[in-house]
Amino acid sequence: MTNSSDRQTRISYDDLTSLLARIFVRFGVSEANAAIVAANCAGCERDGSLSHGVFRMPGYVSSLRSGWVDGKAVAAVLDVSTAFIRVDARNGFAQPALSLAMPLAVEKASKFGAAVLAIKDSHHFSALWPDLEPLARNGFVALSMVSGLACVAPPGGRKAVMGTNPIAFATPVDGANPMIFDFATSSMSNGDLRIAAREGRGVPLGTGVDAEGEFTEDPSRILDGGALLPFGGHKGSALSLMVEVLASALTGGQFSSEVDFSAHSGAETPKTGQLVIVIDPRRGGNEVFASRVAQLMDVVRASGQTRLPSDRRYRTREAAERDGIPLNDETYQNLLSMTR
Amino acid sequence: MTNSSDRQTRISYDDLTSLLARIFVRFGVSEANAAIVAANCAGCERDGSLSHGVFRMPGYVSSLRSGWVDGKAVAAVLDVSTAFIRVDARNGFAQPALSLAMPLAVEKASKFGAAVLAIKDSHHFSALWPDLEPLARNGFVALSMVSGLACVAPPGGRKAVMGTNPIAFATPVDGANPMIFDFATSSMSNGDLRIAAREGRGVPLGTGVDAEGEFTEDPSRILDGGALLPFGGHKGSALSLMVEVLASALTGGQFSSEVDFSAHSGAETPKTGQLVIVIDPRRGGNEVFASRVAQLMDVVRASGQTRLPSDRRYRTREAAERDGIPLNDETYQNLLSMTR
Repeated sequence: MTNSSDRQTRISYDDLTSLLARIFVRFGVSEANAAIVAANCAGCERDGSLSHGVFRMPGYVSSLRSGWVDGKAVAAVLDVSTAFIRVDARNGFAQPALSLAMPLAVEKASKFGAAVLAIKDSHHFSALWPDLEPLARNGFVALSMVSGLACVAPPGGRKAVMGTNPIAFATPVDGANPMIFDFATSSMSNGDLRIAAREGRGVPLGTGVDAEGEFTEDPSRILDGGALLPFGGHKGSALSLMVEVLASALTGGQFSSEVDFSAHSGAETPKTGQLVIVIDPRRGGNEVFASRVAQLMDVVRASGQTRLPSDRRYRTREAAERDGIPLNDETYQNLLSMTR
Repeated sequence: MTNSSDRQTRISYDDLTSLLARIFVRFGVSEANAAIVAANCAGCERDGSLSHGVFRMPGYVSSLRSGWVDGKAVAAVLDVSTAFIRVDARNGFAQPALSLAMPLAVEKASKFGAAVLAIKDSHHFSALWPDLEPLARNGFVALSMVSGLACVAPPGGRKAVMGTNPIAFATPVDGANPMIFDFATSSMSNGDLRIAAREGRGVPLGTGVDAEGEFTEDPSRILDGGALLPFGGHKGSALSLMVEVLASALTGGQFSSEVDFSAHSGAETPKTGQLVIVIDPRRGGNEVFASRVAQLMDVVRASGQTRLPSDRRYRTREAAERDGIPLNDETYQNLLSMTR
């Protein structure tokens, strides 16, 4: 991609969603699935999650054209146990599968106190926080993780065998937006690494290694046969391993190291799995839960932490809802051209 | 404490457990609770988790003498929902409370696929992996977290408001010991920090700040009015926040910042809460789960990672089971003197 222009277009969330949905439909996604994936992608752009916003559209399109992902898939939701739901995404995008399964997960968590949602053969190419925000707005605590493409080497390892394996957590906060964090267990997300490479920016030493296993500050050398490293040394690496166990082994999906694009030139979306744990804090009789979390947020802010997880996202969203979502002209023209 | 002597005693796990149980009973713990806490502490020593082994005995004794913790407490196990158990530890140690609640948690996870165990008003002064190992040996996947004493400042924060807030995860591995990790979300555990201070060793810059909020390599300056920092910057800090939400707000326990020793001189054990999530991977029909995890471990080892989480612990255990648990003479004599 070329450098971005300085001129900006402002577009509403609804208009951006419609535009993206047209692109998805054009490249073989069903109307119902397109509406869901487009809303997700537009929401990321609106909230400033730029590495999962419209930046991802060429990747979505390329994967669809390669035949690697089925845009028309309808997931099978299997009610296998009182507190356990299995979902076979049938080689489709994760968000439509989640959308189908979520009502049952909410019903189970409400009735029984907790529910586990294990999704396999899903393509998750976005952020995780949009999956959890509706749960937290409905009073649930939720934890999710997704395995991905092998691009992370364990500490001391020479070969990329783990995905960026993000973990997200959401909780209601009384009188405020939910607190949601969502981060890659790698030193950097693959999306941010690709943005850095595109913009010719260096990355901090320790972010990753090149094809020879040497530390490098050049993101393109990490992308070109090298590997990212986990964040936080052996602790981040242990979390990444947990993600493979829960999002791949437990769901019945593929490990990051097993994703094989070779028969689908142009494929970019990881086909692995996702685990979601939903807990109803009220069910156990703790009526003051959300106000206790609000107290905690106050204590942490008072200690001097100026920005808590998701603060910036809600501020960005507010501005976008007021002024429209900023897109530079070239990006906007590229999106328009993808509809034709 | 004085420097350790070079001469070593070798003691069996059973003998060490009996010795520690006598100490616990002498300082007011019931026979039943003493057996559980002593086995836990001896197990940590045996497996090389030295910061949670006999090193902790003076702290246990000091807390018991101060009247801060009730060594005779019998927890109330409340079956509040199909997949949700609440436990009021009634100001006792966490391990006897866990021990009482675990059969019900296992029954629920087996029958319903998942169970959440929310414990409040418990004193957890040990490692978390002993709580999870029996679950993983029985085929369950388990996740646990515990809030603690305020000794960690958030990034940018000036004041310690979070505990070291450990997270542990355990999974069965076909044909091998369970893989279990257990780490503080702080840059270092409080126990390791205290050992470093006792031994006059420096800690890496970034581990914590002194009372003026300045980075320091001196562990005693971190302990003396300063604060540890989270591991891995804002990501570790987000995890620490999650631990406060799940182990304190959700359980109905105290936040790390609310633990108030002031009326109990000598108190050292944190009275907060603990969350345990137990999932039965077989229940959902994935019979090959444990062999898939074994495959994953093979892939990660083949990539060049020489030591996986818990490898060292099992090796140390094996040696201790063969040769006895090594204790230096002075430590052993100190333990003996605590029984008189």
